[in-house]
This record gives sequence, C-alpha cells and structure tokens, in this order.
Amino acid sequence: MDSSSPLIQHFRKFESKEIGQKLIDQAISYKADPRIHIHKGMGKRVGCIFLNPSLRTRVSTQIAASNLGVEPIVLNMDKEGWALEMKEGAIMNKGTVEHIKDAAGVLGTYFDLLAIRAFPSLTNKEEDMSDFVFSQFIKYSGIPVISLESAIRHPLQSLADMITIQEHTKEIKKPKVVLTWGPHIKAIPHAVANSFAEWTLGMEHDLTITHPAGYELDEKFTKGATIEYNQSKALEDADFVYVKNWSGFNDYGKIITTDSNWMLTERHLLKAPNAKVMHCLPVRRNLELSDEILDGSRSLVQKQAENRIYAAQSVISHLI
Amino acid sequence: MDSSSPLIQHFRKFESKEIGQKLIDQAISYKADPRIHIHKGMGKRVGCIFLNPSLRTRVSTQIAASNLGVEPIVLNMDKEGWALEMKEGAIMNKGTVEHIKDAAGVLGTYFDLLAIRAFPSLTNKEEDMSDFVFSQFIKYSGIPVISLESAIRHPLQSLADMITIQEHTKEIKKPKVVLTWGPHIKAIPHAVANSFAEWTLGMEHDLTITHPAGYELDEKFTKGATIEYNQSKALEDADFVYVKNWSGFNDYGKIITTDSNWMLTERHLLKAPNAKVMHCLPVRRNLELSDEILDGSRSLVQKQAENRIYAAQSVISHLI
Amino acid sequence: MDSSSPLIQHFRKFESKEIGQKLIDQAISYKADPRIHIHKGMGKRVGCIFLNPSLRTRVSTQIAASNLGVEPIVLNMDKEGWALEMKEGAIMNKGTVEHIKDAAGVLGTYFDLLAIRAFPSLTNKEEDMSDFVFSQFIKYSGIPVISLESAIRHPLQSLADMITIQEHTKEIKKPKVVLTWGPHIKAIPHAVANSFAEWTLGMEHDLTITHPAGYELDEKFTKGATIEYNQSKALEDADFVYVKNWSGFNDYGKIITTDSNWMLTERHLLKAPNAKVMHCLPVRRNLELSDEILDGSRSLVQKQAENRIYAAQSVISHLI
Repeated sequence: MDSSSPLIQHFRKFESKEIGQKLIDQAISYKADPRIHIHKGMGKRVGCIFLNPSLRTRVSTQIAASNLGVEPIVLNMDKEGWALEMKEGAIMNKGTVEHIKDAAGVLGTYFDLLAIRAFPSLTNKEEDMSDFVFSQFIKYSGIPVISLESAIRHPLQSLADMITIQEHTKEIKKPKVVLTWGPHIKAIPHAVANSFAEWTLGMEHDLTITHPAGYELDEKFTKGATIEYNQSKALEDADFVYVKNWSGFNDYGKIITTDSNWMLTERHLLKAPNAKVMHCLPVRRNLELSDEILDGSRSLVQKQAENRIYAAQSVISHLI
Repeated sequence: MDSSSPLIQHFRKFESKEIGQKLIDQAISYKADPRIHIHKGMGKRVGCIFLNPSLRTRVSTQIAASNLGVEPIVLNMDKEGWALEMKEGAIMNKGTVEHIKDAAGVLGTYFDLLAIRAFPSLTNKEEDMSDFVFSQFIKYSGIPVISLESAIRHPLQSLADMITIQEHTKEIKKPKVVLTWGPHIKAIPHAVANSFAEWTLGMEHDLTITHPAGYELDEKFTKGATIEYNQSKALEDADFVYVKNWSGFNDYGKIITTDSNWMLTERHLLKAPNAKVMHCLPVRRNLELSDEILDGSRSLVQKQAENRIYAAQSVISHLI
Repeated sequence: MDSSSPLIQHFRKFESKEIGQKLIDQAISYKADPRIHIHKGMGKRVGCIFLNPSLRTRVSTQIAASNLGVEPIVLNMDKEGWALEMKEGAIMNKGTVEHIKDAAGVLGTYFDLLAIRAFPSLTNKEEDMSDFVFSQFIKYSGIPVISLESAIRHPLQSLADMITIQEHTKEIKKPKVVLTWGPHIKAIPHAVANSFAEWTLGMEHDLTITHPAGYELDEKFTKGATIEYNQSKALEDADFVYVKNWSGFNDYGKIITTDSNWMLTERHLLKAPNAKVMHCLPVRRNLELSDEILDGSRSLVQKQAENRIYAAQSVISHLI
C-alpha cells in the first residue's frame, strides 16, 4: 500500500486484517479524544441517505461526522424524498419518480461523501446478493460511499463489534467467539450476521456459528468458521457470544422456526462462565435474549452501541 | 444551596421560587444578548427526542441550544425510530421493537443532555400520573433530562409564561392571574394547565382558576389557587388571562362540554380593561379564543412563543 | 436603486434584468469559491418550511445557507407540524390546528429569513393564482421570505437555469431557447414552466414555447414568447431545449393528453445538432425524456441541479 494513497476508496466490507486493525486503532484513539481532528473535515459534507429507517445508525453517524468538523445532512428517502427507480432502461410511467442514476448523480455533486442505508428485499435473492442499491450509488455518485447497512453487510456495526472485542480481550490468546442464532417473530436480514462472520474471521478470531438446521448462512461470509448445530456445545468456553436472528438464506427470507429454546439465558452459559454477551440492538427482550443477561454484567450491548460513533468516525476520517 | 452544585439536576417541574427567579433572570439576559455564551456548550450535544409531534418546541429548543454552542440532534421516535416497549419484563414478541431501557441507555452514551416530549395516553390515568416515560428516561439514560412536555407537565412553556408575565408587570403589586378553560373539539392533556398553575403559584402570583363543573384539575398542582366556577366573576380585574383547554381529570380524558359561551371574547373582558391575554399556541381561533383578542393589543401569544427560546436557553445553560 | 438599499425584499419572482444578472454573477462567483462569505451569515438562521416534500431543494438550500454561515432549520409542516388554517375568520372546529397568521408570526420571531415551499391545489385556480400561502407568509412573518416553489413560480430553479444557460453560451448571439411540453402520467403544477418563461424572457433570451393544443400557459408569464404548436418546427436550430410537463391551465389541473410522440428523443433533435437539453429533475425517464438524451453529452440536468446550490446562496446572501 502506497503511503500516499487512501486506505480505502469506499467502506462496504472487510478489506484486510491490516486495514481492519488500523480502523480499530484509529477508533479507539478517537474514543479517548473525540474532537482531536475537529478541523480535519471543515467545509466538507456527508449526505446520510436512509432508504430504511434508522435511529442508532443515524445519530452515531451524525455525531461521528461532527466530531471531525464534517457537516452531516440527513435524507430520509423513504419518506421525505420519493421512490427510486432501480431498473436500467425503465419506462417510468408507474410509481417511481426518480431514477437512482439521476438521484445519485445529484447527491454526488452536493456532497463530499455519502453514507447509505438500503435493506434487502428478502424476496429477490439475486438482486439482494448483488448488493444492487449500494453498488448503484457507488457507480453513479462518483464519490466515496459508506455502507450504513446494505442488503448483505453491516460493516460499521462489525467494526464497532471488533473494537468492543479488542477492548474486552485482555489475554494474549485468541478469543473464542460464538455467533448464535436467536428467535424472532419477523423475517430479519442477514447483513449483521454476514458482516460479523466476515470481520471476526478476517481479524483471525476463532469463530463458531450455531443455529437450527435450515438457517445456514451464505458460505461466502462464513468460510473458515466452525458450524455447530448443537447450541449447548457451541457455547462451551466462549469468550464472546453474539446473539442475532436472521431469516433463511437457502429458503430465502423465510422463518423456519421460532423455537424459544434458542433464546440465550444464563442457563445456556453454565459452561461459559466468563462469556461476554453481544447484540447489535435493537434487541427484543425475552425473545432473542433474556432480561437477566441484558441487565447483568456480561452484557456489552451498550458498549457496542457507543463504539458505533468511533467506528463511523474512524471510517469517515480515512475517507476525507 | 452550595454555590458549586448545579441549580437543578433535571428540568421537569417547578423547584422553588429562588430557582424559578434565577431561570427567569437568566432567560431575560439571554433575550438581550442571545449569543453571549456561544462558547459555553462547545462540543456538547443535546438529543431532542419526540415521541409526539412538535413544531414550536422543537425549533425553539434547537435555537436555544445553538445559541449556547450546543449541537442539537432531533429524533422523531414516533416516525424515524420505532415503537418503544415500556413494560419491565415484557416478552417482546409483538409490535414494540426496542425497550425504553436500552434506547435510553444508548442515548445516554451519545448525548450530554436529553430533551424529551412524551404526551399522556389520556386513557391510563395511573401510568400518566406517574409520568412514566419521562421517569424512565431519567432512570436509564444517566444524564440530565429536560421535559419538552411530559404526561403531566410542560415546564418550559410555564417558564416562558413566567418570563412574559414578569416583562409585562410594571407595578409593584401582585398581578391577578386567571387561568380560564376554553372549549375544544378534542381531548387535550392537562400538562400546560397543571404547569401553569404550579409555576404561577410557585412564583407567588395571585391565581384564580375558572372552568365548567367537571373540569377540576389535579389538586396537586392547583392547591393555593382560588377556584371560581363563574367565569365572569373570575375574570374581574384580571391582569393576565391564560386561556387553555383541557379534558376531564376526574372523568379522565373525557370531553364533558364544548359550551361556546366559555370562548374568551372582548365581551368577557369588560370588567378587566387592562387584561393581557395569553395562550401557549397552537390556538384554535374562534373556538378557544376570538380573532378580535388574538389580533388585538391584549394578546401576548407571540411574545410567549418568542420567550420559549430563552426559557429553553436558560435551562440548557444551567444543565451543561 | 439606492446602493444602500437591499437588492430585493423577498425572492418570489423575476424583478429586472439588472437584478437577475447580479444574482447570476454572484452565484457564479460563489460556485468558484463557495465559502468565501462564510462569516457573512454568522448567528443568522433560515427556517426552511416545507408544506410539500422536497429533496434537491431542501438539501441545496441547506448547503447554500451553511456556505454563508447561516444555520438552516428544516420544518416539514406536512408531517412534523400540522395542518394550517388558511381562511381569515375561520371557526377552527375541524381538522386544521393552527392558523397561518399565528404560525407565520412565530416563525418570524424565530428566524432571520424564511424559505417556503407550498404547491398549488390544482383544484382552486383563483386561490392558486393569488399565490395565497406564499403571500400570507410574507404578510404575517414580517421577515424576508424566499420561494422554494410556490403555487405559480419556482424562481430558484429558474435562477439556476439562467446560470446554466449563461455558463453554456459562449457566443455573443442570443441563444434560441425552446420550452417543450413532455408527457407525464400525473397532473403537474405550472410553476417551473411559468418561472422559466418569465426568467428567460426577462433575461432577453429568444424563447419559443411548444405544446399540444390545450396546454396554453398563463399569458402573464409567456407574453413575448413565440408559441409554436408544431414541436418539430419549434425545435429547429435550438441552442437550449427545456423539457417539462405541466397540466392544463385553461382546463385547470387537467391531463389533456399523454401523447408519447411529445417525449424528447435524439430523433426530435435532428435539426438542432448543438442543442443542450435541460430538465429541472426529478425526471421520469423514457416518459418525459429518453435515456439516450439524459445519458448523452447534450444533457445539462446534473449541472442545473448543482447550480441550485449557488442560486440559493446568491439569493440568501442578498437577503441577509
């Protein structure tokens, strides 16, 4: 890597352990002194485009930007704007009012940086897997683009998770990280689970994934992890347990089971006495995870949420 | 009061005449020179959380914050965020997507100060009276919280009203203040009426409250006021007349009458020639209050609205 | 014009060629150095009031303001606020919750400048033509008001268009400008077409307007233009072709035809080889205008959108 070239062009996925570590280290140094680079972004603007609703992500990105002197402007395009046409060559005589080409092009002239949230359809697997909306914004805006969760990844969440794991890993040994599926009543995207697997493996932690049969994730993200269908066995001696629901990938977007035995409780952690428990929030209490864990000393969920600020700040700082 | 300790921890109610007077005086001094403390809040952020819609309150709070160099970030949690679960121990397998504990905890790590609007249900009297949502934010955020109108009080409105009364009281004598119920077609919360009574009595003005039978307010707020069912008698020699609708308190949340004789007009003020008329806005013209009064020289409603900025600025300044 | 008096009081329409040229020149100079007057608006605030949704207009206005050090605060009054009562003397016992008089009055005390978007009803012609909502804000706010598109005009769009035409006019000769109606599936306001005609004629360009019979615009705006019903003849030797849909004016708010032969394609421009094509965006591709034109070298649409920033900045700069 040439020292004069930027670390990354866009922020959509795990790139390399070296880059991951640089982003983590920068984030931790911003956490100690958030406004140390307050003049770095002066006069620059980031457009935060939400095609889906957001609270934590929106606020943490606004704070991250303004810690760097970058002005954030939020566009809720699901409500304030209008339905975007995604199809090349479409005859726009129906409900969509602007083509993504034109919208992305204009936003590219208005901002120095875009940050975009665009969930998957969970119905069109091929389009979701191509990360279509996010890719279109990169293609037509002509400026650096940050993923605030795309159809298949949520890299800022994972970067915040890696920061949190590093902060809570005191010993030299590789931590044992377990990603466990938890029950939910809705069909939930794979983005958080995919990215968590991608980053955990990329940072060379020891990763075990456990879930009911039928909930296998895309191997593109999980290759290198141990897949263990027995949750109890998977959790043994875990240092970090990440709880997350996702819908079927093979049986795409489907809810295969809501078996409440999979909800993580203290009883599940009898053989993992020192395990810290993680979740990206929002969490459905007593459905995905029990109150006793969330309100107890194992929980890192508030720390993960706080680290979202410094994850975003580190990324924005490298892109401006 | 130790001079090194803060004047207030949170801003949810009237505390004492001494504190009230300090807040009024600070507000009046900010009105004369709004940006005199522009560096005081540099690097600090206030999260403005709206569980209910707002216009005047939202804008005046943003302006107040930015006059102090504090960055305001608005969260419309009814729309941009998601339905909060309020019940301890709830199994969250229905419509709510995040528990107030978790949301408040995260917001507490993101901001230096929270400002929250949360209306009452007007159906669950016990929960409303416990000021449940506001109390939960204080409990779980761990940072100072300002009420932008809670289930039972609207203290920033009342502080703005007290500023306005002080600005328009030239003589030494105690002003006679009358709070009169006005008709409305909707069931309206008690918060403005409660707070106005609490602050007017707290600041030791002479308060008369008049309303049709059945509209008695909670005595917790009105103790010390004269209750006079004859509106005409109540209004005699008034210096300030505050017009406000509220729904039943004993017959909780109900509309008992919409009798248009209670709508304040010039005819009602024949025996109060110098009375100034107040209303917190938005006002339903020719239903609560006549055009002739609102467009005439008695009306202080625009001045009250303007003072909302300096009320908020005074409170934020004392909390940072 | 006294050199000490402001160039304009409000920004709602074309004033004179001299003022138009000053606004264009100032905009072009801001485009070269956007933050040159960053201290000019320090401590000032513009309230951006949207009675109708907006994306490009909202963001370009926010950027323009902040380039001048002016703090923009956005109010989406269709959603965040409430339905405004417009009728003088109304008895407000129905759906409207605040009279425009009161709302405008308060906003006038909160801001130094207002910028307002208020579309026409397209059903009440007389009220639309009186530019009622915009006029009421001027009347009751008491501060300078900028149109972000009113019932009958969209002057910031037209100013951006004039900047774009000037930037692309290299020769001395008057450019031939053609405004051509394009098909659409919805009833669209006349504001962009009206303003474009008003400004193009005002800046003394040579203007031809072409549209199917029945789509005649208000002569108040088009007087001085050549009206040519034969689109093909109108387009001959055009230097700039502005494509825009509008609904009927005589048959008010009606869709008279959606004839797809009127959609501009390369085939239409065989006799206008050097024509540049303009559109205010959002554009319905392959309905109003073909992909081949929008993606080709004739298209100025992205440049027009970019110039929206500097048009707004020039106007705000002259009003503060």
